[in-house]
Amino acid sequence: MTDLPKRITIHEEGPREGFQIEAGPIATADKVRFCEALAETGLHEVQCVSFVDPRRVPGMADAMEVAAAIRQRPDVHYTGIALNLRGYERAVETPLHIAGGLQMSASNTFSLQNTNKNNEQTLHEQRRQMAFFREKNIPVDSAIVMTAFGCNYEGAIAPETVRDCVGSLLAIADEFGVTLERVRLADTVGWGSPLQVQRVVGTVRDKWPDLHLSLHLHDTRGTGLANALMALQMGIDDFDSSCAGLGGCPFAGHKGAAGNICTEDLVFMAHEMGIETGIDLDALIECARLAETIVGHQLPGKIMHGGSLSRYRA
Amino acid sequence: MTDLPKRITIHEEGPREGFQIEAGPIATADKVRFCEALAETGLHEVQCVSFVDPRRVPGMADAMEVAAAIRQRPDVHYTGIALNLRGYERAVETPLHIAGGLQMSASNTFSLQNTNKNNEQTLHEQRRQMAFFREKNIPVDSAIVMTAFGCNYEGAIAPETVRDCVGSLLAIADEFGVTLERVRLADTVGWGSPLQVQRVVGTVRDKWPDLHLSLHLHDTRGTGLANALMALQMGIDDFDSSCAGLGGCPFAGHKGAAGNICTEDLVFMAHEMGIETGIDLDALIECARLAETIVGHQLPGKIMHGGSLSRYRA
Repeated sequence: MTDLPKRITIHEEGPREGFQIEAGPIATADKVRFCEALAETGLHEVQCVSFVDPRRVPGMADAMEVAAAIRQRPDVHYTGIALNLRGYERAVETPLHIAGGLQMSASNTFSLQNTNKNNEQTLHEQRRQMAFFREKNIPVDSAIVMTAFGCNYEGAIAPETVRDCVGSLLAIADEFGVTLERVRLADTVGWGSPLQVQRVVGTVRDKWPDLHLSLHLHDTRGTGLANALMALQMGIDDFDSSCAGLGGCPFAGHKGAAGNICTEDLVFMAHEMGIETGIDLDALIECARLAETIVGHQLPGKIMHGGSLSRYRA
Repeated sequence: MTDLPKRITIHEEGPREGFQIEAGPIATADKVRFCEALAETGLHEVQCVSFVDPRRVPGMADAMEVAAAIRQRPDVHYTGIALNLRGYERAVETPLHIAGGLQMSASNTFSLQNTNKNNEQTLHEQRRQMAFFREKNIPVDSAIVMTAFGCNYEGAIAPETVRDCVGSLLAIADEFGVTLERVRLADTVGWGSPLQVQRVVGTVRDKWPDLHLSLHLHDTRGTGLANALMALQMGIDDFDSSCAGLGGCPFAGHKGAAGNICTEDLVFMAHEMGIETGIDLDALIECARLAETIVGHQLPGKIMHGGSLSRYRA
């Protein structure tokens, strides 16, 4: 395990992942309280909301109100995401830290099903967005390749396909003179295994050894933290995750099945392996329990139920 | 990942782990049906019941009836466990495959709390049991070291302590002329991390490079499959696990929090990494869903809710 990083950065996506999927309704004040509690744990980023069409995602109808109400700490980035220009136009009106990003799916069919655009059209749209970001002075920090580990429409995804997607997005960033902080590889529908993580990360890194890679892993089939372990062993030091394992797929028939890897379980594993996160695990576990109280049902995180080890070691 | 085994053996403990902890009552016929279904998946062992005092474990009050009712396939071992001589005396009256075992805890305090015996007294008791096994012609196949990765009473457990426990149990086996098939290291209360697995397995193996080690991992804090991955990377090819993640600790305040690692999630990870199990994953997932129907509430297994990938690949 010699390539283990000394420290990892975690991008907390629980509020956005969770409140867009929970049946709710959840009070705006509860969403704000959860974001504020997360920001007290040592997390450097809390992704609070998504600026999407509230007719499609009713849980985000109060995104502007949530964004406006959060009392911000100066050392934390409170972020929000948008999926199109209309969303970004709303996002930049809020006090949130809004950054643009490049995105595409490694699966052409997934793109067509979800955005009605094939990969070529997606890349065209990315250029249009980059021009918009430049015009609006929105910083661009990352690119993401979705379905990088497999797709429910196309099945297995070749690592070389993911590598080519990364290349396409890096080329667009380059056209606009943008240096990306990180490139995210997303296991959007939970196909990843440790072996597939090794293959995809290895193939991308072979081409760009110095590229800062980040993983966005869904724990649909139980291998989420094992996939993260493999990534750690390859020196990956940057992860998206979700407090309490909030999130999931509305089509999975089981709310707890398909959320992001659970932040506090990831933090526990990291700390136990001597990897720093800068996060107070016990405070984060309290946030997870708050999330369960807010949504009103059990969430899939483990250590929030098993309890941390600090009381036994004290 | 060059030390990955080509094939692993899985000891299914779901019926015993689950039905001893579920509030129930669960019909005897349902327990039998679940054991029979598991035996159709390619599992070579199904641990069906525990012969314990029904006043302490009401869910095992019908252990004799369950054991008698199962229609056995000839290629599967249907097993049961006992914790003392009285239990073994009942066990050998059933058609189950009963094997004796040696056991102790790496934590002296854990032993005192759970059995009222310290480690010296435990070893004395193990000799008494070995004499009983010999007298009754009960084969002895394994030894287990509990709390091998940490203890809620003593905290961290030094790998050298685990090594010494293994040495004590091997010495008793030797006294009785018994060669053990496997030595099991148990994360009884869910303290394990991948790093701790590496340390403990490494320390034991340094002393006995050819000893067949097996892991019994509880997923109390979410790292269960990551711990299993580390074990696989060290060439461990033998695991206990529990269909649907059945099991758990009655004191955890959350039924799903502390069960064994989930068999079908482990099988999924193994298959995705090219490791054979001999098990039909889709059939096993159906067993997990049956378990959920039988217990009447959600169980912690993931892929039973997320679904296998076979339908997408077909």
